Amino acid sequence: VKVQYLVPGPMSRGPMGARELRRREALLASWAFAGTTVEVVDVPTGPSSIESVYEEMLAIPETLAGVQRAERDGFDAVIIGCFGDPALDGAREIVSIPVIGPGQSSMLLAAELGHRFSVITVMDSILAPMEHQAQKAGVGHKLASVLSADIPVLELMNDRDATLARMIDVGRQATSRDRADAIALGCMTMSFLNVADELSAALGVPVINAGKAALKAAESLVSQGLSHSKRAYPVPPKLRSTPQEVVA
Amino acid sequence: VKVQYLVPGPMSRGPMGARELRRREALLASWAFAGTTVEVVDVPTGPSSIESVYEEMLAIPETLAGVQRAERDGFDAVIIGCFGDPALDGAREIVSIPVIGPGQSSMLLAAELGHRFSVITVMDSILAPMEHQAQKAGVGHKLASVLSADIPVLELMNDRDATLARMIDVGRQATSRDRADAIALGCMTMSFLNVADELSAALGVPVINAGKAALKAAESLVSQGLSHSKRAYPVPPKLRSTPQEVVA
Amino acid sequence: VKVQYLVPGPMSRGPMGARELRRREALLASWAFAGTTVEVVDVPTGPSSIESVYEEMLAIPETLAGVQRAERDGFDAVIIGCFGDPALDGAREIVSIPVIGPGQSSMLLAAELGHRFSVITVMDSILAPMEHQAQKAGVGHKLASVLSADIPVLELMNDRDATLARMIDVGRQATSRDRADAIALGCMTMSFLNVADELSAALGVPVINAGKAALKAAESLVSQGLSHSKRAYPVPPKLRSTPQEVVA
Amino acid sequence: VKVQYLVPGPMSRGPMGARELRRREALLASWAFAGTTVEVVDVPTGPSSIESVYEEMLAIPETLAGVQRAERDGFDAVIIGCFGDPALDGAREIVSIPVIGPGQSSMLLAAELGHRFSVITVMDSILAPMEHQAQKAGVGHKLASVLSADIPVLELMNDRDATLARMIDVGRQATSRDRADAIALGCMTMSFLNVADELSAALGVPVINAGKAALKAAESLVSQGLSHSKRAYPVPPKLRSTPQEVVA
Amino acid sequence: VKVQYLVPGPMSRGPMGARELRRREALLASWAFAGTTVEVVDVPTGPSSIESVYEEMLAIPETLAGVQRAERDGFDAVIIGCFGDPALDGAREIVSIPVIGPGQSSMLLAAELGHRFSVITVMDSILAPMEHQAQKAGVGHKLASVLSADIPVLELMNDRDATLARMIDVGRQATSRDRADAIALGCMTMSFLNVADELSAALGVPVINAGKAALKAAESLVSQGLSHSKRAYPVPPKLRSTPQEVVA
Amino acid sequence: VKVQYLVPGPMSRGPMGARELRRREALLASWAFAGTTVEVVDVPTGPSSIESVYEEMLAIPETLAGVQRAERDGFDAVIIGCFGDPALDGAREIVSIPVIGPGQSSMLLAAELGHRFSVITVMDSILAPMEHQAQKAGVGHKLASVLSADIPVLELMNDRDATLARMIDVGRQATSRDRADAIALGCMTMSFLNVADELSAALGVPVINAGKAALKAAESLVSQGLSHSKRAYPVPPKLRSTPQEVVA
Repeated sequence: VKVQYLVPGPMSRGPMGARELRRREALLASWAFAGTTVEVVDVPTGPSSIESVYEEMLAIPETLAGVQRAERDGFDAVIIGCFGDPALDGAREIVSIPVIGPGQSSMLLAAELGHRFSVITVMDSILAPMEHQAQKAGVGHKLASVLSADIPVLELMNDRDATLARMIDVGRQATSRDRADAIALGCMTMSFLNVADELSAALGVPVINAGKAALKAAESLVSQGLSHSKRAYPVPPKLRSTPQEVVA
Repeated sequence: VKVQYLVPGPMSRGPMGARELRRREALLASWAFAGTTVEVVDVPTGPSSIESVYEEMLAIPETLAGVQRAERDGFDAVIIGCFGDPALDGAREIVSIPVIGPGQSSMLLAAELGHRFSVITVMDSILAPMEHQAQKAGVGHKLASVLSADIPVLELMNDRDATLARMIDVGRQATSRDRADAIALGCMTMSFLNVADELSAALGVPVINAGKAALKAAESLVSQGLSHSKRAYPVPPKLRSTPQEVVA
Repeated sequence: VKVQYLVPGPMSRGPMGARELRRREALLASWAFAGTTVEVVDVPTGPSSIESVYEEMLAIPETLAGVQRAERDGFDAVIIGCFGDPALDGAREIVSIPVIGPGQSSMLLAAELGHRFSVITVMDSILAPMEHQAQKAGVGHKLASVLSADIPVLELMNDRDATLARMIDVGRQATSRDRADAIALGCMTMSFLNVADELSAALGVPVINAGKAALKAAESLVSQGLSHSKRAYPVPPKLRSTPQEVVA
Repeated sequence: VKVQYLVPGPMSRGPMGARELRRREALLASWAFAGTTVEVVDVPTGPSSIESVYEEMLAIPETLAGVQRAERDGFDAVIIGCFGDPALDGAREIVSIPVIGPGQSSMLLAAELGHRFSVITVMDSILAPMEHQAQKAGVGHKLASVLSADIPVLELMNDRDATLARMIDVGRQATSRDRADAIALGCMTMSFLNVADELSAALGVPVINAGKAALKAAESLVSQGLSHSKRAYPVPPKLRSTPQEVVA
Repeated sequence: VKVQYLVPGPMSRGPMGARELRRREALLASWAFAGTTVEVVDVPTGPSSIESVYEEMLAIPETLAGVQRAERDGFDAVIIGCFGDPALDGAREIVSIPVIGPGQSSMLLAAELGHRFSVITVMDSILAPMEHQAQKAGVGHKLASVLSADIPVLELMNDRDATLARMIDVGRQATSRDRADAIALGCMTMSFLNVADELSAALGVPVINAGKAALKAAESLVSQGLSHSKRAYPVPPKLRSTPQEVVA
Repeated sequence: VKVQYLVPGPMSRGPMGARELRRREALLASWAFAGTTVEVVDVPTGPSSIESVYEEMLAIPETLAGVQRAERDGFDAVIIGCFGDPALDGAREIVSIPVIGPGQSSMLLAAELGHRFSVITVMDSILAPMEHQAQKAGVGHKLASVLSADIPVLELMNDRDATLARMIDVGRQATSRDRADAIALGCMTMSFLNVADELSAALGVPVINAGKAALKAAESLVSQGLSHSKRAYPVPPKLRSTPQEVVA
């Protein structure tokens, strides 16, 4: 199984740099089933991180192009490397391989683990979009809350202990006040901090690492010979018979 | 009240041409309250029409730029000229003036007119996205159905009578089988065909012209001194204090 | 556009008197689009204010008669001057002109402005009825809360500053605890206090003046040539062919 | 247990006459538990039958007065004799004894008997109001459909066989097309036709006679010493301390 | 009316003993309508009390057998004596007499008494299952909360005053924080403590004794000649024509 | 990864015999990731097949015992081999390893593949229980329909071609009438017929083999180090400190 993990921003050109791409690739490799290879790539331009719908939107065109490239390059599945699942529905329309949204995968997994889940994410500015995501994923009735650690994406890795401590605080709010019995980490940089197990130990509930969840979803679909429904995500009419230029 | 109607595709460069922009501008002017001026503009590049989520996504970056321009140019409100409301939530984050989505406005208006509404749109490929739109607008429980006339956007104006006849057929399905008591025209080109009154007479239920509905929503908000909630659509964190480059 | 604003209680005979009718008429005139005239009338008998379902019910017969009169007198639309929308569905059955319910209009407008709205009203006794209103309007999923300022209608105008202060307190509960991102003033006397802008400034979210919202809804419908669906609000069977006496 | 069954229209002055009141009284007596007495009364004025929201509204003031009278006269419970439950919430505010709405009681009973129920009522004009009733009763998710026999209330008793035949036809639509596994008769005159058992035999699903269901609900509440929550249906504030005139 | 109340555990062999069966029988007799006889029996083996889904499941086989026996023995209805309604749907498939689930009956009754109800039960371990019960009963939208008194079933009767005091505390949380306007006692041993009236007096809202509610539901159904829908609870296919062995 | 697939009926003693256990084991092995071993076992007594809630309930006690045994025997995860997920919630309370319900896993997977899914199962008698399953899984809003092929479990394998032909017919109803864009096979014997790919080719939508879906869910959870939330499925109180006999 050949999986591409596509970062929908120019990470290699930003403060984290190409080294972070390699670090994530190594982590994904360590999480994979035997026989799975994972390549991590980013896109050439776009927002340095995604903390708003606006930035998510800016990331879309390059992400769409990247997904198309992944299919052409023979990957069996592609993971969009952002919990907000930018470009997800459009990407599924233009390729046939599975396109995994870590947000969608994590929320459906959370729904399997318990009765009510919370999402812990980076900033207040994306709470409402993640509530919409849960509804669209079909599991909005199981969402206990979306909570923010109030740490910008690009600062999450500055001090791993401080970040974890904040996440524990927020997680306690989720489990006590909101009665969550499972937690999903609502940001890929959070997930690649690899703190899910520590957080789970502190909170007493399962914590979903969205990177792992997305990888497993990709492996699972490929292994079952399944991909997203082309009835649900039909090829755009203009691209059906004689592929033509969609953009003038 | 100065309103901009922003076509999220390069209409002036396509088959309909700049003349169609002027025709729509004249229609909007004829629908406006005294004291309202409406300017119709398009964007320089993008899909020639929007019949898929993919094309909607391709239209987003230029639409975001256009909305920003409209605010800088002193417009009191901007209407995104596509029923799918491309770029809506992101656009509301980056400006303070009201940004009107004709789909959202029409669906909320439909909810006021009756108990169950249907949307008639162009092609099967966008039925599911419009169901999601209704849910996100908050009135999914009043949606009876989304139905397709199965006519591509760019062919709607070829034969007005044939298009209207097809819409009447589909509308009867909505009112009989799906028990809709109000209809919204789910495409701006359909709306600017100006057939809503004829369709309403044929079907015996109110039919919403999404162009009129969007214009009235714009005028109504400006007149009340209201705009979208900045709590619901917060300025992206990176743009808050010292505006910086979002895109690398 | 000729609009009648019908107060569903004998305001001119109560403590506020006919002067209050004239004051509201002047405010509505100041909010209207050029070309709109608004007449404010009350009904001859009924409850002095509406703070319960019981009182709302007592207001219904005269309100129905008033709406019928408004249509006969040539008005283009009639607004029922109570946020609880007494008589709304029955009134829509017996006339063809738009009948505006300020509660319904305000809630649908609130749904357009953000993701979650709260209603601030006068007393605890009408919290549940307003929750039912939101559900019936179709936007119950966007309702964050209905909160009471705990001030009887007839005392709201005694001390404008005290009333506003109380509303700010309650509004803070709505925005903080209930995460509302928009507010609707759930009482017409509250709305005609004309405090929405001050409240909005204090709370940082849009605040809907139900009087303005209702007027704009009326103007918008008339301008679009739309009225409520007669399929949704059919003429009572006994009144269809040979109008007969409904009441023995 | 002393129960009053209050017909919310001047039945004794209409075509059915006082004899029909006595006939219903006898039927209710035959359905009652030992120890229950039922008195059937009507109101002095109001609509001759209720086939619209408008007529339901016209019936409200006298019904409210009747309920108050029933409490003063020492009845243990009062049943509002119309499936639309006119005046229900307001009546519960002004008395302490249980006020039974046959529509609400029947729908909650239907929810106990199976997974999906349909209501068969008299005319198309009240389908939507009954859907709202089911939602307000809290069991909207179990409502399969509301269907109309298309027979006016005052003609239901003209030809019992023809009425039953029509109800069987409509009932088959409910069980086949809408997959209802229980039926409620959505009209009191239908219920007092006493055809529920025959209809049930023909359709193979339980059929609820709303008259029986309401009587049993009344007996059940009184026997348990329960009444409606005064927190849910609070005494109108103006009536709390020093009862004053609500109506000017 | 002959009703059997079937305790789904071997109560007579446990600490409460056969005397408790007789005590409950006497209470049920005191609550019954004239003409109703109630027999209380338990099952030979099973969990000593039910405070988890696991224990509920262990109680099922003997409960199914008991329900079948009750029908064969000529009872008109059988009540499953546990608020969790163990075996309910399966039991309804294999008999024709009404099978009453006190949880379902109490929740539907609560939905009739007000707008939002809470359930007070014994331990945290069954909060989620009772939320599922409310949803399945069809009244999940009216459920304010399920709260636990944190007292094991077998200790409830140790100190009636202490238990009542704890229930008042928890009940206040329900009415204040969760805005419940009616309460159901979510455990049969709680119900047979016979504290509902005292709790109601303390809280100012109606409190449902699940034992009474179940008995009244049984009497009501039998009196109406109704039973559960065999369409909703069909006879298992293998048992239809030539009854065969279901279990190998 | 060591997975046990536990058939909740005495298959080896029935018409399919132990050979069928081995056949399923071989299929599961062929579907597994490298490194996964799957053992298929059945229980000593119970229903020969499950086509009703009653039979599902009869299967529960042995299934609970089997799950406990699997944990004691060192399995990493256990799959309950019936689409109805008998004993699921109770089993999760008494063990710590993941307990997979094929119905729940398949429905959550279906929710990832499209917008609306249908389940095709064996007989009408279990349509409603599967609708409840979808709601409890949290994805009831995405369920288009549950349809029956009207073939008893034990006859599914008699004529593979006939069974497939019937499933294609029913599947067309799902995709056309109910607008399903994904299908789940709602029976394990159906799934082990291994017809999902043929059905998918005939219908043009993805078809989920519940056996594969359950296996992948097991492998995915174990690989992520996740199990079900003990907050959602708490250890029964009586088993917590000093394990005692639950059953008298």
